[in-house]
Amino acid sequence: MTTANQERLERLSVNQRTVPRLSLPELADRCARLGIDAVGLWREPVAEYGLDRTASLVKDAGLRVSSLCRGGFLTAEDAGQRQAAIDDNLHALDEAAQLQADCLVLVVGGIPAGSTDLLGARQRLAEALTVLTPAARERGVQLALEALHPMYCADRSVLSTLRQALDLAESTSPDGGFADDPTIGVVVDAYHVWWDPDVWSAIRAAGPRILSFQVCDWILPLAADVLLARGMMGDGQIDLRALRSAVDAAGYTGDIEVEIFNQDLWDADPDQVLATMVQRYQDCVL
Amino acid sequence: MTTANQERLERLSVNQRTVPRLSLPELADRCARLGIDAVGLWREPVAEYGLDRTASLVKDAGLRVSSLCRGGFLTAEDAGQRQAAIDDNLHALDEAAQLQADCLVLVVGGIPAGSTDLLGARQRLAEALTVLTPAARERGVQLALEALHPMYCADRSVLSTLRQALDLAESTSPDGGFADDPTIGVVVDAYHVWWDPDVWSAIRAAGPRILSFQVCDWILPLAADVLLARGMMGDGQIDLRALRSAVDAAGYTGDIEVEIFNQDLWDADPDQVLATMVQRYQDCVL
Repeated sequence: MTTANQERLERLSVNQRTVPRLSLPELADRCARLGIDAVGLWREPVAEYGLDRTASLVKDAGLRVSSLCRGGFLTAEDAGQRQAAIDDNLHALDEAAQLQADCLVLVVGGIPAGSTDLLGARQRLAEALTVLTPAARERGVQLALEALHPMYCADRSVLSTLRQALDLAESTSPDGGFADDPTIGVVVDAYHVWWDPDVWSAIRAAGPRILSFQVCDWILPLAADVLLARGMMGDGQIDLRALRSAVDAAGYTGDIEVEIFNQDLWDADPDQVLATMVQRYQDCVL
Repeated sequence: MTTANQERLERLSVNQRTVPRLSLPELADRCARLGIDAVGLWREPVAEYGLDRTASLVKDAGLRVSSLCRGGFLTAEDAGQRQAAIDDNLHALDEAAQLQADCLVLVVGGIPAGSTDLLGARQRLAEALTVLTPAARERGVQLALEALHPMYCADRSVLSTLRQALDLAESTSPDGGFADDPTIGVVVDAYHVWWDPDVWSAIRAAGPRILSFQVCDWILPLAADVLLARGMMGDGQIDLRALRSAVDAAGYTGDIEVEIFNQDLWDADPDQVLATMVQRYQDCVL
């Protein structure tokens, strides 16, 4: 790669679930070849490869870990289940610390099956965060609340807007107001927030609480499995450049992580996917 | 039916698309038998049966028309297409006037295919409404802006939240502020807005601009075709009673319309669907 290209790619991070057929060493190899300096990791494939080995691998490769996915699922009605979730989140924080991940992403959980008590689920989430946030602070890990698209509200995340995630982070924070380096903040994931008329104002308000910025595209028709509905940047209808500019203007200088769950891309040649990703990142995001 | 039951059902309206296998006379017959005094109509089946015949049928049956669906789709980039959409909406207003419908529901349209210009689509919508609102006023028809769930933002509605719909209604209104009988207002459709942390505040703010209240339920797993993903009240995770109470507290006294698009229900015996609907309305909404 040319130096000019390396500069252009200096904030690009590839989430490993974008190219799940690549092993961690293969992913590190491709990053080196393409001039990519950061990766987003998931706990399950990290555990499979080994936490220690992964930590060594990313360190030796000189890769930043832009995020670790994921903690969360803190909304169970049963107190035992909720405690188990908190324990699991504490493990996730330890893993994030060992990997020197920029943040642990929290997908907070939905409404328990059979319940209509959305407000109760949000309340239980808020209570769990009062336990997790000091634990994150102790470990030097940042907790990144991810607002998920409202179509996932019932089963995955009772946080549906960036504003709501920000409000929760601010009310939870032990940082004594609006710290420059908050223990709890938010993810701005273009796929989840692009539709929101309030997103621009929420991004400005979030400022230093923006801990992660993720990109992909909204493509139609929506996949039958909405968990796999994301598209490659440029294939859909999100104005990614506008969102990136807004996040930058809010003071975010961190990585821009590409996270795409899409069966067609998962079935494709990962090297081709990465080549397209690098091109589209430059054409549609920068 | 007992008198007590008739009182309990006095605000119930059945949208004809909930039981699409029933012809309009069959629907009127079932309403009479069940003690239902209102229906929600769609332009296509009305045109098929005949506008004049439909107007006579509902008048003779003593049925209120709680809403006519639908106008909208006002976001095209091509000026000719946009003018054609406005012309079609003017026809829809004439039809709503003839049917003495309480309101014409507007599904405003998404982002043109291939475009990422969400803000431009919203702007074109706002411009079109400045033409349609005086036309609605002349005809004595109320325009009801429907915020659709954000999963339909790209292809069906660039209005994604109740607050956004309300803001647009207020900025468009020729009513000289916040009239008791506004020409342009909003639909509160539980399916589209239940997830929104701001919905309670937006309902309060909407007050007399609430022109229609629609109910069904959010069921999982989401249907492969998200246009048919709605469920019967009580089968899912929306706190419908809380929303009904909020809408009532905001001053809404109009009909409560059941609109469910669901292939399983469409395949079922319509009389059974209506019987369940009446029961669930009383158990889960009132």
